[in-house]
Amino acid sequence: MRIELNKKDFYEGIQTVNRAVSSKATLPILSGILLKTEEDRIKLVATDLEIGIKFYVDANIIKEGSIVLPAKYFTSIVRELPDDKIILTAEPSNNTAQIKCGQAQFNIHGSSSDEFPLLPKMNSGINFTISQGIFKEMIDQVKFAISEDISKPFLTGGLLKFEEEHLVLVTTDTYRLSYRRIKFNEIDITGKRVIIPNKTLNEISKLLNNNENLVKVLITDNQILFEFSGVTIVSRLIDGQFPSYKQVIPNKNNTKAIINRIELLNATKRASLLAKKDSNIIKINLEENQLVITSNVPEIGQAYERIPISLTGQETEIAFNATYMMDCLKVISSEEVILELSGSLSPGVIKDNSEDEYIYIIMPVRSN
Amino acid sequence: MRIELNKKDFYEGIQTVNRAVSSKATLPILSGILLKTEEDRIKLVATDLEIGIKFYVDANIIKEGSIVLPAKYFTSIVRELPDDKIILTAEPSNNTAQIKCGQAQFNIHGSSSDEFPLLPKMNSGINFTISQGIFKEMIDQVKFAISEDISKPFLTGGLLKFEEEHLVLVTTDTYRLSYRRIKFNEIDITGKRVIIPNKTLNEISKLLNNNENLVKVLITDNQILFEFSGVTIVSRLIDGQFPSYKQVIPNKNNTKAIINRIELLNATKRASLLAKKDSNIIKINLEENQLVITSNVPEIGQAYERIPISLTGQETEIAFNATYMMDCLKVISSEEVILELSGSLSPGVIKDNSEDEYIYIIMPVRSN
Repeated sequence: MRIELNKKDFYEGIQTVNRAVSSKATLPILSGILLKTEEDRIKLVATDLEIGIKFYVDANIIKEGSIVLPAKYFTSIVRELPDDKIILTAEPSNNTAQIKCGQAQFNIHGSSSDEFPLLPKMNSGINFTISQGIFKEMIDQVKFAISEDISKPFLTGGLLKFEEEHLVLVTTDTYRLSYRRIKFNEIDITGKRVIIPNKTLNEISKLLNNNENLVKVLITDNQILFEFSGVTIVSRLIDGQFPSYKQVIPNKNNTKAIINRIELLNATKRASLLAKKDSNIIKINLEENQLVITSNVPEIGQAYERIPISLTGQETEIAFNATYMMDCLKVISSEEVILELSGSLSPGVIKDNSEDEYIYIIMPVRSN
Repeated sequence: MRIELNKKDFYEGIQTVNRAVSSKATLPILSGILLKTEEDRIKLVATDLEIGIKFYVDANIIKEGSIVLPAKYFTSIVRELPDDKIILTAEPSNNTAQIKCGQAQFNIHGSSSDEFPLLPKMNSGINFTISQGIFKEMIDQVKFAISEDISKPFLTGGLLKFEEEHLVLVTTDTYRLSYRRIKFNEIDITGKRVIIPNKTLNEISKLLNNNENLVKVLITDNQILFEFSGVTIVSRLIDGQFPSYKQVIPNKNNTKAIINRIELLNATKRASLLAKKDSNIIKINLEENQLVITSNVPEIGQAYERIPISLTGQETEIAFNATYMMDCLKVISSEEVILELSGSLSPGVIKDNSEDEYIYIIMPVRSN
């Protein structure tokens, strides 16, 4: 194998697939990146067997071939190379690559590409497309509520569900639930539901651009594939039954307040400074024209803040974990949010100011 | 006490003195910041008894007074306040401060200012002035070579020495020595030498601006005081005898090379990627027209790089800790550096391309 390629493009490609490199590396070869010539490009692949990422970089292929190089060293070496043409050669005889760039030269010992696991082939299944920017927003609005409790694997991912007129993405860690839907009319796949692992959602969100270019998605029984901007991501799906979230979303309320989102976010952030470290509890009082946030660490001090609101229904009070409040207020895009309550012991609902496109359910905590 | 002041100015002042707040806090009051009205300003003071920082912020003083507030909470609260006018009140009766800004209101429990240690009064001593930018550069060029070995306290600071025509700042951790001098003609203090603690040098460097405004310095037997840009810093000096560094600086060499600084820095950085983690050794070969840097981790690979140089004297080779090399190459400002060697076992010398204003001595390591 002998290729010439541009440092900047090569490094961008390596960084992209690097996200799938196994950090635990039970199988040593999974801590490597596969390089393989394909026509006038070099294919880069990394996988931890749960998620696999593939990316092509344009290259001048002088001699075909392939090798697996240790991701950590390989990535840092290419990063530090001058912005110049890289010549990479590898002999199958000793599985060692030579990297030349400017006056710098590296030999890195790798492994044979024969040992590298193939990404699963996915030919048929459900397929659809979605705008990169919208898919990224959906993921970012729910990913923080994914559970890390591995004893309940079905909660360690996001539920992607095809409803009659909507595509829905839901996550919950049982303390809160985050729900986002968009208009979506592909009636032939209505009812289909899959659970996408946390890591996959996070890595996709980082790689997606905030534009209207399309992501192609292909779903089989136990795999999901994403294609966008030259990146291919294959991920396993999580087995199991996602909880029936619809019954968790309250369909009525006793109190409804419309609140400026940034004011509520900043006030919550300030009050959290004087909330107890472990529980992080802040108290919210909804009065006729104002919302009052308070917090108290007896040995340090108290916080108190008022925000003007527009209230419908009963005055009430409730206590929440401040971090859970802030998580959703950071990702809502509307200027105002709606807070719906039904007393101090029932879940609170925070919505953006649209037609139920974003719903966040948050369990109250005891404030004393 | 009742004052009104601008959030931005207040926060800047708090951040400045915060650098002296004790992180270990053997004495609880030292984890606080003293606030005290003085004429039309509020004085902020923090100290860990080794270093003390004082800063004044303009304020509208409605009622005089003072209080000590817990630095961590107080700083994060003021940081999160809106960009508005702050009203701070404190009652001596209960040592609690009330902070109001916009719709936000905080009560923070503090302590009586009577318990806060006074910064030492320093009236007479040696005094001189120096440009902020030059003093900052001097510190930044030597601070990384300060020893952290508390069993040799006299190495845990920088030696500031007044020579006949120069002011000198020297540090060493016994593996390398960093020396910077500037022209300085205050003959009446020639011979004076003090050791300034590591933390003091680091905090001063962060607070100094890169301009020609002056720093006033006052030195007594066991204290040093710096005044610049409204900041006053008082620090203890370190007792003990700094090693006689002059005999460490070689006054002749067998090999002298002139090398482009950035090329040498980047090549060293790249070679260090394949240097053994614990020892971080790179090898340098000086040949007639080129310097060759190599490194080797047998199980991973090798690095090799050539840099054109201008050589006088014998060809030679030597091995160094790559981090020690990079530390000095990052802070030299000249385009070229001079590397002087006397065989593989003698200390190497790296100088900037000026008249011995900056000298860095680095001990060789065995490369096998």
